[in-house]
Amino acid sequence: MKKILLCELNVSEGADEDKIGRITAALSGTPNIAVIEVNSDKDHNRSVFSWIGEPEDVLAGAKNAAGRAVELIDMSLHHGSHPRMGAVDVAPFVPIRGVGKDEAIEVSRAFGKFLGGLGVPVYYYEDAATRPERQNLVDIRKGQYEALPEKMKDAAWVPDEGPFQFVPKCGATVTGVRFPLIAYNVNLRTNDLSVGKEIAKRMRHSSGGLRCCRAIALMLEERGMVQVSMNLTNFEKTPIPVVFDLVKSLADSYGVGIADAELVGPLPLAAVEEVVRHCLRVRNFTIEQIVETHLLG
Amino acid sequence: MKKILLCELNVSEGADEDKIGRITAALSGTPNIAVIEVNSDKDHNRSVFSWIGEPEDVLAGAKNAAGRAVELIDMSLHHGSHPRMGAVDVAPFVPIRGVGKDEAIEVSRAFGKFLGGLGVPVYYYEDAATRPERQNLVDIRKGQYEALPEKMKDAAWVPDEGPFQFVPKCGATVTGVRFPLIAYNVNLRTNDLSVGKEIAKRMRHSSGGLRCCRAIALMLEERGMVQVSMNLTNFEKTPIPVVFDLVKSLADSYGVGIADAELVGPLPLAAVEEVVRHCLRVRNFTIEQIVETHLLG
Repeated sequence: MKKILLCELNVSEGADEDKIGRITAALSGTPNIAVIEVNSDKDHNRSVFSWIGEPEDVLAGAKNAAGRAVELIDMSLHHGSHPRMGAVDVAPFVPIRGVGKDEAIEVSRAFGKFLGGLGVPVYYYEDAATRPERQNLVDIRKGQYEALPEKMKDAAWVPDEGPFQFVPKCGATVTGVRFPLIAYNVNLRTNDLSVGKEIAKRMRHSSGGLRCCRAIALMLEERGMVQVSMNLTNFEKTPIPVVFDLVKSLADSYGVGIADAELVGPLPLAAVEEVVRHCLRVRNFTIEQIVETHLLG
Repeated sequence: MKKILLCELNVSEGADEDKIGRITAALSGTPNIAVIEVNSDKDHNRSVFSWIGEPEDVLAGAKNAAGRAVELIDMSLHHGSHPRMGAVDVAPFVPIRGVGKDEAIEVSRAFGKFLGGLGVPVYYYEDAATRPERQNLVDIRKGQYEALPEKMKDAAWVPDEGPFQFVPKCGATVTGVRFPLIAYNVNLRTNDLSVGKEIAKRMRHSSGGLRCCRAIALMLEERGMVQVSMNLTNFEKTPIPVVFDLVKSLADSYGVGIADAELVGPLPLAAVEEVVRHCLRVRNFTIEQIVETHLLG
């Protein structure tokens, strides 16, 4: 089976089309990868580059794109509404098919050493973290770029790779390995936000809900509807159809129907497996039964 | 988008491993195709070879495998429990991705002309049929191989390609184009076959049910359960989750639960699209959102 690894490189430039184009070109020139999307946001002043391929090719793409980003972006001049800490801000490597966690961690570490070699301070996070307090991106990035000069004087924040002091131009980069994240939003036939908040509270792990579910409720002003917006951090442990059933059951208990839903961003084929198993009752269904998987090698 | 066509070559040899191996080798030697399965049945005395690839490569595989089958198999000596008419019995070409019906018909016709050139009488069926009475395989194959000598004297059964008379060694071949067929079986928590028969009657098109659904009920002796066994001839018009919902609703009306279900054989990725749309309410979901589709080219 051919291995598939995904990289989602978050870069702190979302407005300058010339620079974004040059980073894209560096990435696209990498042999044997497939670029899934380049998503730039001017307000965030940030671009997310997503691509897949075999682990060594995905690593080569990361080096090409990140090398160019470090060269072109000056963080001391950066403004944007999205939290950020470095020119190459975050780079998760996500196993999609036939790639073990350890192998993905090796790729992430090789990428970290490459950036360190370019003079960029690097922190490993999630499954690649070297300390428990570095698992969570939010903890590492607290205070953002502006906090780095002070933070890096603290022994607790010695980088895992690269120089031990603040580098104004590149800031710092976070890289690591995580399970594919699924963004699943369910829209309710109500404009009563309190119903959505109650449902979100019951859904999310932190307040007693499903183990791998984060949830908030928000108002979709244009549609006059409430949305339960969820991130599923592990679709094997907390499958999408189970999440749907529970949202539906909770909504029912308030006499509220489900209008529709959305899956945001690229979805691994493996996440579909449990949808077929659960919703069509085909308990032994595997994605290998899908015709097209025979072309994945 | 790279095109994907599927061929399912049904050959009248299911016991002689040497012959099956030589046909498999002829197929596997074809460049740029992926063989999905070779399924041989001794009682049926029949093998089904399935493979995918771009149309011209799939055609090359069909010529290679069928040419070898015509060379090795003598129909005048053939016995088996499955209905059959020729050494190469049936060869449907099935569009999977980015292939139009007309393009698939061209492939099927090129294959028919190739067999005709080898001296095999050929009939086109389903979407490639040249007359309405040749659309249905069951009609063409009526009376099987044994009926061919008389049948071929009838002007109504002049072949579309190849010689106009009975050829004892190869019999006759049926080839054409059809939509992917989905075999979906639902197992009920009852041993009352009459309940299954009532549900099958309501499900199938011929007795008032869903347009693209064929259904029978049968007893699973080992499990003491009744199965509603269905063939869905067009999953776009009659989607699997709609079929599931109706079976479930009918079973409910008899106070019978659904134990589990099975999808038999290779499933086109496109058939999964409506499962996600319907069951998770993601109305605008497309398979292009699945990460792995970016590797299909």
